[in-house]
Amino acid sequence: MAELHLCSPLGFRASGVYAGIKTKNAPDVGMVVCDGTASAAAVFTTNKVFAAPVKVGRENITRGKLRGIVVNAGNANACTGQQGEKDARMMCHLASIAIGCDERLILPSSTGIIGHLLPMDKIERGIAHAGHALGRDREHALHFSDAILTTDLKRKQASVTFKLGRQTVTLAGVCKGSGMIGPRMALPHATLLAYLTTDAAIGAPLLRKLLGAATDSSFNAVTVDDHTSTNDTCAILASGASNAKIDSPRAVKAFTAALDEVCQSLAFQIAADGEGATKVVTIEVEGATTEAAARTIARTIANSPLVKCAMNGNDPNWGRIISAAGYAGVPFDPDKCTLSLQGTTVFGHGRPVVFDAAKLSKALKASEVRVLLSCHLGSASATCWTCDFSKQYVTINADYHT
Amino acid sequence: MAELHLCSPLGFRASGVYAGIKTKNAPDVGMVVCDGTASAAAVFTTNKVFAAPVKVGRENITRGKLRGIVVNAGNANACTGQQGEKDARMMCHLASIAIGCDERLILPSSTGIIGHLLPMDKIERGIAHAGHALGRDREHALHFSDAILTTDLKRKQASVTFKLGRQTVTLAGVCKGSGMIGPRMALPHATLLAYLTTDAAIGAPLLRKLLGAATDSSFNAVTVDDHTSTNDTCAILASGASNAKIDSPRAVKAFTAALDEVCQSLAFQIAADGEGATKVVTIEVEGATTEAAARTIARTIANSPLVKCAMNGNDPNWGRIISAAGYAGVPFDPDKCTLSLQGTTVFGHGRPVVFDAAKLSKALKASEVRVLLSCHLGSASATCWTCDFSKQYVTINADYHT
Repeated sequence: MAELHLCSPLGFRASGVYAGIKTKNAPDVGMVVCDGTASAAAVFTTNKVFAAPVKVGRENITRGKLRGIVVNAGNANACTGQQGEKDARMMCHLASIAIGCDERLILPSSTGIIGHLLPMDKIERGIAHAGHALGRDREHALHFSDAILTTDLKRKQASVTFKLGRQTVTLAGVCKGSGMIGPRMALPHATLLAYLTTDAAIGAPLLRKLLGAATDSSFNAVTVDDHTSTNDTCAILASGASNAKIDSPRAVKAFTAALDEVCQSLAFQIAADGEGATKVVTIEVEGATTEAAARTIARTIANSPLVKCAMNGNDPNWGRIISAAGYAGVPFDPDKCTLSLQGTTVFGHGRPVVFDAAKLSKALKASEVRVLLSCHLGSASATCWTCDFSKQYVTINADYHT
Repeated sequence: MAELHLCSPLGFRASGVYAGIKTKNAPDVGMVVCDGTASAAAVFTTNKVFAAPVKVGRENITRGKLRGIVVNAGNANACTGQQGEKDARMMCHLASIAIGCDERLILPSSTGIIGHLLPMDKIERGIAHAGHALGRDREHALHFSDAILTTDLKRKQASVTFKLGRQTVTLAGVCKGSGMIGPRMALPHATLLAYLTTDAAIGAPLLRKLLGAATDSSFNAVTVDDHTSTNDTCAILASGASNAKIDSPRAVKAFTAALDEVCQSLAFQIAADGEGATKVVTIEVEGATTEAAARTIARTIANSPLVKCAMNGNDPNWGRIISAAGYAGVPFDPDKCTLSLQGTTVFGHGRPVVFDAAKLSKALKASEVRVLLSCHLGSASATCWTCDFSKQYVTINADYHT
């Protein structure tokens, strides 16, 4: 999987260039372009304060067709009023000129500081440059994935291939996100940005349905700070260039599995690169009354600063986990549940279980920690990914100045 | 007001002694006792995981009468099963013997680590000692207020007197709370512990109603980490010893004002002493559609780690505040709202307002920061208190070992 990239699916080119929007010298304008008109779907933030590119993106995705995506990092174009909206439309216009298509076939995205107008002179030169720089090799795909990063320390990408009859389908994705990560994305409504490409032949309505479901069990299940961004966007473009049609139950199943795998891998990478993170904490809740209840419990545990600090200190302070489940506001009974950390049971059926605290603390010094809470109330389950809370988190966010 | 204390209301004695439950050498068992049977009311945590003393306290408060309160710090007696419940009842029994009353007239409280059985030998000696040590002067009241502290750095107390005809009514309170502060207390259901004494003559049903209302606009409006504790308890005892009857609309109004003043002062003191806090952030939301919506917006802003870190860095990063309001899940329109920080308008009617960032950053270096969000959607308002998020917070909570 390591050698695949965003342009591995047939029919896609990408680029990332430096336009001077970020304060640091790094790519900050990127484009992904399909050779033809792609079937497309997207989900956006449910925040009532949504950025101008989200407004324009929602309009443009309604037809289920896109030629490309244009993104800038370093400025979110959020809380920027009517001028912000004009600027987002201008980004589409400039990208459409660069590749020769209707501007309504472009999905715009922005990420960065809130409340500042885009430097349109830099944006204009950047998009023109990005249009010229498009290419379909690994290098170009990596430039794009770098252009969308902000406080991220690592590039995030995932891809998978599967066979449908004689055809090979490839599905790839890249994303960014490190802080302001508490996505609650909905159709047709993540500053999580995620872009997926595939060469499957699939209609927009089905793509839309499958993306919504995949988002709920991946991007919407990751939280760094539970702060839902104004700019969260996840879009998928399907070129159809593999000629593999997703039109049978078997094909839908295979495509869904591939989509889930890519989205969940990307979501995990976001938690791993959460601001100041030293580890990923995977929280699995099982035996809940409903899937929604399971998700709520998992997310409430994941968002507790006390739980996250205990994880930073490799402290098996399970009382913080059980008490977080107790205030999640959904059915939960401490007398029935069982809790394990890294496979060690610490609480069972209302009573503490004796365990070797020093040994478990050592086991918690891992890059991935697994928390399993069995509610014994029903049969529903959910998984959520988060990271620990470190001093570095405070440094990053107290010093990221406006 | 400085010279008043928990035993200033007529008819109360208090004590605080060291029983060896806390690891540090400080008082950890305390009692407050009324000379006669007091009218009483209490609110408790709404966490489904509630501590044994909360279970017993809920039972004992049902009659609306108490003689006393017994508290230990250093161990929460939560998640301790049936033995924990027996131990909480034993605390009541021991306190009742010490002062000579029915054990059902005692309200027990515990605060500290979750999931460990109480060291009952130390508790037994501690309560016997506390019973002997009771006194009605300032010194004794201070010993009690120290005995309930855990990670708190400061003693928290407030009191007020008012005249009703010829009588002077005194109302006083003490509380503890620094971490695991996200109270959602309800009747008859707050590790916030708060104890109030008054010498007003007031029936339990009215006391109960007034305490519930006062809690909502004070303790339930303070958040440090939004982690609702298993042990939150707020109780009030009215001795009636002033002979001032709270039975006229005027008297109820005066008593309510006094109760609100004491509760809000204590809530503010909790935010000021929040784990690692360098400042209190007061978030006022006005012009919301309903009071519940105003509270939800205020609390969502107060709980954003990004907002709290910005406050730690004296950064007027208002985009984090507006975007938090946007995902609160209640009616909010960024195009209509106005936001000011320390009296400086930074965002108005959907657009950024030009302001002197360096000057405002300097103004944010205060021990109290005021955030005012005017929604311009209705006439409801609410206030919430929180603190900033510092590296010290992480140190405290990553190293507070089980």
